[in-house]
Amino acid sequence: MGRILCAGLGPGDPDLISVRSDRAIRAATDIAHFRKAGRAGQARRIVEGMLRPDVVEHAMEYPVTTELPFDSPDYIEALARFYDEWASRLSELSKTRDVVVLCEGDPFLYGSFMHLYTRLQGRAEVEVIPGIPGMVGCWWATGTPITWGDDVLTVMAGTLPEADLVAHMERSDAIVVMKTGRNLPKIKRALAVAGRLDAAWLVERGTMPTQRIARLVDVAAEDCPYFAIVLVHGQGRRPELGDEA
Amino acid sequence: MGRILCAGLGPGDPDLISVRSDRAIRAATDIAHFRKAGRAGQARRIVEGMLRPDVVEHAMEYPVTTELPFDSPDYIEALARFYDEWASRLSELSKTRDVVVLCEGDPFLYGSFMHLYTRLQGRAEVEVIPGIPGMVGCWWATGTPITWGDDVLTVMAGTLPEADLVAHMERSDAIVVMKTGRNLPKIKRALAVAGRLDAAWLVERGTMPTQRIARLVDVAAEDCPYFAIVLVHGQGRRPELGDEA
Repeated sequence: MGRILCAGLGPGDPDLISVRSDRAIRAATDIAHFRKAGRAGQARRIVEGMLRPDVVEHAMEYPVTTELPFDSPDYIEALARFYDEWASRLSELSKTRDVVVLCEGDPFLYGSFMHLYTRLQGRAEVEVIPGIPGMVGCWWATGTPITWGDDVLTVMAGTLPEADLVAHMERSDAIVVMKTGRNLPKIKRALAVAGRLDAAWLVERGTMPTQRIARLVDVAAEDCPYFAIVLVHGQGRRPELGDEA
Repeated sequence: MGRILCAGLGPGDPDLISVRSDRAIRAATDIAHFRKAGRAGQARRIVEGMLRPDVVEHAMEYPVTTELPFDSPDYIEALARFYDEWASRLSELSKTRDVVVLCEGDPFLYGSFMHLYTRLQGRAEVEVIPGIPGMVGCWWATGTPITWGDDVLTVMAGTLPEADLVAHMERSDAIVVMKTGRNLPKIKRALAVAGRLDAAWLVERGTMPTQRIARLVDVAAEDCPYFAIVLVHGQGRRPELGDEA
């Protein structure tokens, strides 16, 4: 009887994988990872050079990604069938061996694995190893702390309606916006309304060799991948001599 | 010429330290860590058994913790002098050797090291190694994903005024409240007003052997340490067959 082990990979630099995930990945006889059809997949790329030569790889290819709106019935049904099917296949595989599922960032923070995790309850032994979230790698890349003292940090998706983005941004000290891509013009307008556009950064692939950091005002709308993250740093309470705040 | 290396330690389980931090800690000839006077200190406890036998330890003891209100001029001045002094001492030490500063969680997310980091700019070579934030270890401990789909996650301090807590809680799908302790009755009232109290968890020392998880409604106000975290999980979009949402 084997287990399904979801290994959080962290933000991208393999050196930032936890000791426990690193050990599980290097010992794995079977790995599974999500990818877009025809692509290598980011998770698989992170562990390049770490795997046993005889490892068996199970590529879980998303049936759709951005071809359909994420709230359309066809998209929902295609994804649900995909997760149902892979939950069954992993559960079956785990009867005879351990399977290590590779997950970027932290698996419990907006991770795709969670859709398998809920489906696997009661059907297989599942262990999740946490990881450094992708956003942590992005604020690390800016070289500036994200929150101080009592700063409020809000993490939101760029897919939200513009008015919602503005409302959250106005109330937050530190801001993280995920799912940028084609939502960038909306995100920029919302930050401008909230008075935070000049302090915003766009970070792509934080901690990876291809890491890119830019002031958001300098980024063209057409030049933003879906997985880039927008950040605004908090400026909260810091004890300084002569500070009577 | 040495460096100051701030090693993020993650949430508490030494196995969740990153490969890079682990390597730096085991090789360190000099370590520094924050602690309350007379206590062992959580950061130091995490690395027990990992250090070289001849390591030199520099305990940075907070001059005050909860004896004074955090916004009083005396508190601010005592802390500012403390950080000024240690920035000078570490900078001096780093002229002849590497010094590894141990930091729980992720150093850039509400970390004490940031107060040294800003003071050390231009005075020493400083490298920060990110870590898994303590809150990630706490949601991992509940065995339940914290955010799905387009969930908004807000991280706030229990020290905020009650009306602010309510306003943030009402707008958020997933909630993290840090700095609980004596703020617990206020946090509970705010969650009740926001209609989220029944879904809230209190997690203490997530991923450590002494980890404790309880439904917040079952926790007595006098039974909550400052470092426990209150969590409410998001319930966002999940593709299910027959789901037309």
